[in-house]
Amino acid sequence: MSMAHMTTAGENEAARLDAEDPLAGFRERFVLPDDVIYLDGNSLGALPRATAARVQAVATAEWGTGLIRSWNSADWIGAPARVGAKIARLVGAAPHEVIVADSTSVNLYKLIVAALQSPLAKGRSVILSEPGNFPTDLYMIESAMATLGGRHRLELVPRDGLSDRMRDDVALVLLTHVHYKTAERYDMVAMTAAAHAAGALVCWDLSHSTGAVVLDLASARADFAVGCGYKFLNGGPGAPAFLYVAERHQSTVTSPLGGWMGHAQPFAFADQYAPAPGIARFLCGTPPILSMAALECGVDLHLEAEMALVEAKSRALATYFIDQVGARCGGHDLELIGPSRGAPRGSHVSWRHPQAYAVMQALIARGVIGDFRAPDAMRFGLTPLYLRFTDIAQAVEILAEVLTTRMYEAPRFQVRQAVT
Amino acid sequence: MSMAHMTTAGENEAARLDAEDPLAGFRERFVLPDDVIYLDGNSLGALPRATAARVQAVATAEWGTGLIRSWNSADWIGAPARVGAKIARLVGAAPHEVIVADSTSVNLYKLIVAALQSPLAKGRSVILSEPGNFPTDLYMIESAMATLGGRHRLELVPRDGLSDRMRDDVALVLLTHVHYKTAERYDMVAMTAAAHAAGALVCWDLSHSTGAVVLDLASARADFAVGCGYKFLNGGPGAPAFLYVAERHQSTVTSPLGGWMGHAQPFAFADQYAPAPGIARFLCGTPPILSMAALECGVDLHLEAEMALVEAKSRALATYFIDQVGARCGGHDLELIGPSRGAPRGSHVSWRHPQAYAVMQALIARGVIGDFRAPDAMRFGLTPLYLRFTDIAQAVEILAEVLTTRMYEAPRFQVRQAVT
Repeated sequence: MSMAHMTTAGENEAARLDAEDPLAGFRERFVLPDDVIYLDGNSLGALPRATAARVQAVATAEWGTGLIRSWNSADWIGAPARVGAKIARLVGAAPHEVIVADSTSVNLYKLIVAALQSPLAKGRSVILSEPGNFPTDLYMIESAMATLGGRHRLELVPRDGLSDRMRDDVALVLLTHVHYKTAERYDMVAMTAAAHAAGALVCWDLSHSTGAVVLDLASARADFAVGCGYKFLNGGPGAPAFLYVAERHQSTVTSPLGGWMGHAQPFAFADQYAPAPGIARFLCGTPPILSMAALECGVDLHLEAEMALVEAKSRALATYFIDQVGARCGGHDLELIGPSRGAPRGSHVSWRHPQAYAVMQALIARGVIGDFRAPDAMRFGLTPLYLRFTDIAQAVEILAEVLTTRMYEAPRFQVRQAVT
Repeated sequence: MSMAHMTTAGENEAARLDAEDPLAGFRERFVLPDDVIYLDGNSLGALPRATAARVQAVATAEWGTGLIRSWNSADWIGAPARVGAKIARLVGAAPHEVIVADSTSVNLYKLIVAALQSPLAKGRSVILSEPGNFPTDLYMIESAMATLGGRHRLELVPRDGLSDRMRDDVALVLLTHVHYKTAERYDMVAMTAAAHAAGALVCWDLSHSTGAVVLDLASARADFAVGCGYKFLNGGPGAPAFLYVAERHQSTVTSPLGGWMGHAQPFAFADQYAPAPGIARFLCGTPPILSMAALECGVDLHLEAEMALVEAKSRALATYFIDQVGARCGGHDLELIGPSRGAPRGSHVSWRHPQAYAVMQALIARGVIGDFRAPDAMRFGLTPLYLRFTDIAQAVEILAEVLTTRMYEAPRFQVRQAVT
């Protein structure tokens, strides 16, 4: 992917934007293959350079040599709260309001059931969300309702009708702050206030927001939140997730998964469960330390960057990307999905195309890695810590070529793989 | 810890037993610190030599270079079923009856709720377990009952009364096959048959059994089981756990945690949940790949050993240990807990002592690492793949010295740490 051919005004602009980028220095902190333009860091964040060595040290020194002693001496036991407190700084929460545990899905279940069973939801039966929310959010609502015995009802209301639907039968509003496909972004302050005005609780899924946009759960007075470790936090494949419970709720809600690590005295080995004080009651089983160590590296790296700069660069990358696609890929049936140029958004850009799957396969074959999202979306993640404007310029160049030459029509790009 | 002083008959016997040990070659496959006799592999198994390099390769090659593509190209997506199928060989199950997911605690919750909600438990309200079962087993029963709305009742019956209590109001019997403290071991075939005769379902917790004793879930006609990855399977701290659902139940039970990875078509991104066919419906969120890779190394190593030999060596180590303690530590208030010499047991040995905590601290200071289990038990794990009879001889030598010199009375050994 030589840049010798790049001479347009757009490309010169890219070089200028890179030169002015205050976050440019972060790129070298990541391992990135030379032959790839990685636009999928919102699905799996790239590997920080520090991580492999850290994971190696945890395996050989802490596990191999320290053995069982490392639960104390290397503070493995403190990892969920320690890493949680670091993530709290990225989401605008107090250190003791966030803990790392389990997966996003499991954490959703904990918080949905905890909310529905809390005194605050008494006499209310409706859970509000939107159609097309990330599937596992909707599935975990279904799961929670099924376990709780059919006393609740899920209503999926398109986002422009949500505020109107917030009435006094609503127990919980569960929304994904940045939409996984469209990058549409809720006004967290306004939406939380609307829910609270109706007496409802709010749980925010921050999976596509954390490490991508400025978050302030405290100002929004959010009740609950969950988020993912393996996207913008660069915690590694299947990294542990996190959850947030506002301090004011911590003594009144309990986890439906009251495992031994959430016990007030795990090592008293008592027959009866007694929840730990505070956020620790939302722990369940033993935390996966190798994966936790990788997550901590990703979070530590993020904490070096100012989130306002990260969000500003994300916005600039998106604007540049949209402009370049507009300028160079016209007449090829691409339709921008989600927020228009310059509007508030998350940190990815998606286009609809009748052959979205095949076009994405052709792009991947050319080294431009994005995501296909059924049925017809191509999604490109914009990760401000390791993407350059010149990467976007090259990606658009290759996209234009794939579309113009119709190389995506080759049979090898048309056959669907089982998974991506 | 020179062995120059070792000249007793017991020690000569240890050397002879090591020389005859068919599993002796496995020891060099593990990383073990020189200054430690590790008798806690039932709490955290030692690091296999292959693991650190494998985890490094997953981080740098699969994650760093492969990035999102590795879900397909490195078959990350297949890891839960692939590693599950390997563990199936260690527990006497069919490959498609076991899957790796989440923690033991979360898996307990899934199976308890699934069992109680299944048609097979209809009209039955009692869950049977025993007092002093591993805490999280009891806590997850409490959790399941609380979520299901108080329709069920937990009865804790001492093990010699369990068979008599199996009547037609019992929905589920949940027992830990090998007791975490005493190493007492249930007759799985007889107990399962007794439960089935009363029309009850059985879930076995195999945390202290898997990789330690011969297991045959198929012959026992067990309904459900869970197990731990970080003990005898040497999967690393907080390794993912596994669960088993007998094939005959797989289409009639559903997970209360119906996350997107357990969906029939996770990448269709449908709003409505539809459980995957078979054991895959018991997946929930995205699996932690680094921790999963470490677990697979431990399991692969175990599959090289014949389980009958592993169990025979475990028994021989226990017998030797008990005999040596009897011969060398008499008159020091040690009381063997659990099965007597030669009786069926799991792969650890525990003694009661009025100063158990302090004695264990003194032993650890001398390099003999076991566990204290409240209120008064010293527990020593016997891991046949990497322990020698001479290790046991040395450990007993040190134990005798600690007891004889009363070094455990030093103040530094008396102060309880928060966790071990």
